[in-house]
Amino acid sequence: MNTTFERPVRIRFQHCDPAGIVFFPQYLVMTNALVEDWFNDGLQIDYAQMIAQRRIGLPIVKLDCEFSRPSQMGETITLALSVVAIGRRSISIDILGYCGDETRFRAKQVLVTTSLERGTSIDIPADIASALATFSPQSEFIEAHRS
Amino acid sequence: MNTTFERPVRIRFQHCDPAGIVFFPQYLVMTNALVEDWFNDGLQIDYAQMIAQRRIGLPIVKLDCEFSRPSQMGETITLALSVVAIGRRSISIDILGYCGDETRFRAKQVLVTTSLERGTSIDIPADIASALATFSPQSEFIEAHRS
Amino acid sequence: MNTTFERPVRIRFQHCDPAGIVFFPQYLVMTNALVEDWFNDGLQIDYAQMIAQRRIGLPIVKLDCEFSRPSQMGETITLALSVVAIGRRSISIDILGYCGDETRFRAKQVLVTTSLERGTSIDIPADIASALATFSPQSEFIEAHRS
Amino acid sequence: MNTTFERPVRIRFQHCDPAGIVFFPQYLVMTNALVEDWFNDGLQIDYAQMIAQRRIGLPIVKLDCEFSRPSQMGETITLALSVVAIGRRSISIDILGYCGDETRFRAKQVLVTTSLERGTSIDIPADIASALATFSPQSEFIEAHRS
Repeated sequence: MNTTFERPVRIRFQHCDPAGIVFFPQYLVMTNALVEDWFNDGLQIDYAQMIAQRRIGLPIVKLDCEFSRPSQMGETITLALSVVAIGRRSISIDILGYCGDETRFRAKQVLVTTSLERGTSIDIPADIASALATFSPQSEFIEAHRS
Repeated sequence: MNTTFERPVRIRFQHCDPAGIVFFPQYLVMTNALVEDWFNDGLQIDYAQMIAQRRIGLPIVKLDCEFSRPSQMGETITLALSVVAIGRRSISIDILGYCGDETRFRAKQVLVTTSLERGTSIDIPADIASALATFSPQSEFIEAHRS
Repeated sequence: MNTTFERPVRIRFQHCDPAGIVFFPQYLVMTNALVEDWFNDGLQIDYAQMIAQRRIGLPIVKLDCEFSRPSQMGETITLALSVVAIGRRSISIDILGYCGDETRFRAKQVLVTTSLERGTSIDIPADIASALATFSPQSEFIEAHRS
Repeated sequence: MNTTFERPVRIRFQHCDPAGIVFFPQYLVMTNALVEDWFNDGLQIDYAQMIAQRRIGLPIVKLDCEFSRPSQMGETITLALSVVAIGRRSISIDILGYCGDETRFRAKQVLVTTSLERGTSIDIPADIASALATFSPQSEFIEAHRS
C-alpha cells in the first residue's frame, strides 16, 4: 500500500520574484505538475491522454494553503503528496513542500473529475478509481511522515 | 469610508489551459496584481517603491480558495477586494471573482509585512496603516456587496 | 488608414525576476496579449471566438527580438504594433516596447493562420483579411513613429 | 572538449494553451532553465549564487527563434545547447528543441554578463570564462549533431 508520492523540485530563477524568493502562484504550478507526475508515474494513468483523448478534466474546487517559510533560488525542495479522501467524484489530497526538516508550505486540495465535453462533474472512471485505491488515505500523514 | 476595491480582468489566451478555461494558478497571479493595484490606486501607496526602495515585502502566509465555476477565454470578470481585518503585522483580505451574477472564485488571504533585508515580519509602517484605516473591515462584505 | 496599434502595460511584480527587472519571456506574454487586443479592439475580430468557436489558430513561426534596456517594476511601458507584411497565410508584425524616448525591446514576429482541427496552415479568412487591409504595412514605421 | 549540453523536458499541462500545444513564451522559460542547468551541471558554476551572492546577471540582448512544429502535452522533448561564440562580455548560444527526428524550435540567443549592482555590462569573470572554454564553439553543431 502506497502512502506518499514525492518529487524534488529545483527552485529556479523563473520561480522567483524581485524579493528573490518563490512567487507563491509558482508553488501552485508546482503542485499541478506534482499531480501530473503522480498520475503518470504513481497511478500509471496517462495524464495527457486523460485530458486530450479521454476528455476528462481534473479541476480544483478547494484549496487551503499555509506558507511557512520562503524558498530561495537554487534550493531543491521536496513535494510530498498524500491522499486524504476519495469520494465518488472527488479526490482530496494534501501536499507538503519541505526542505531538510523545514516546512515551506502545505496545500490541501480537492480535485473533481469532470467531462470536458459537457463541463459537468462525472464519477471517477473505474481505472482511475482502482489506481487511487492503491494509495491509502492518510489523514495524519504529515505528522507520521515527518517523525 | 471605502468598502471594496474592484478591477475588471479580461480572461486571455495566456491564462487558459488545454481545457480552454483559466489555469487556477493564474487566478492567484491576478489576485496579486489586484493587491498591487489596490496599493497604488486605492491606498495611494507606491507598491513598486515599497518593494524596491523601502524593501518592505508583503508575502502571503495563508490562502483559502473556492473555485465555483470556470472562466472562459474572452470573458471579463471583476475582482473585488475587501478588508477583513488589520493586525499589527498582517492584513486579511477577501477577494471575490465574479462575472455578472455568477461567482467564479473566492480567495481569503493573509498577508504579512516583512523586512526584505532581514527576512522577518515587521509592524505595518505608519503610512500604510493610515491608508488601510480608510478601508473599513467588512467581515460580511460579500453578502452585502452582492445583494 | 491605421498605422500602429498601441497599448500601455504596467510592469508588475509578477513580471519581474530576482534582478528586479522584467523576465524576458514575460515580454513575449505581453506581445501575445497585445496581438489579442489588436484583434479585438483594432481589427474588431473577436479573438476568443476565433480560437474557441471558429477553431482558427495564430501560432508564431518566426520571432526576432532585441532587448535594449531593462524595464523596472512600477514603470508603464507602451507596446506599439505595426504591420510589416500580409501574406496569403501569414501576418508579419513589428512590436516596439518603449518608455518615454527609450526603446526597451523590439520584436519582429511572423504569425500563421491555422486550422486547429487539422493542425495545418490555412488562408487568412476573408473577414480577417479585410480587417488587416485597414492597417497599412509600414516597413519603416518605427523610425517614422519615433521621429 | 564538450560540444552540446542536453536536457529532456516533459511538456506539461501548465505549458499548453487552449489549442493544446505549448504556448510559445513557455519555450523561452524552458531555455532559461536550460541555461541555468548548463551553468550548474555543465559548467559547474553555481547559477543561483552567481545571481544572488555575486550579483552577476546574464540578461538576453538578442533572440532569434524559429518554431517549426508544435509540441503536445505529454511529449518529452530534448533541448540541446551549443556555444556559437564567446565574446569578452557576451555568450552566443544556439538551442535546438527536438522530439525524435523532428525539430520543434530553434533559438539563437546572445547573453551578456552584467553587474546587478551597477546595471552595466562587465567582462565575463575568469572562472566563468574558463568553464566556457571547455565548450568548443560549434557554428555548425546542429547539422553535425543531427546526422
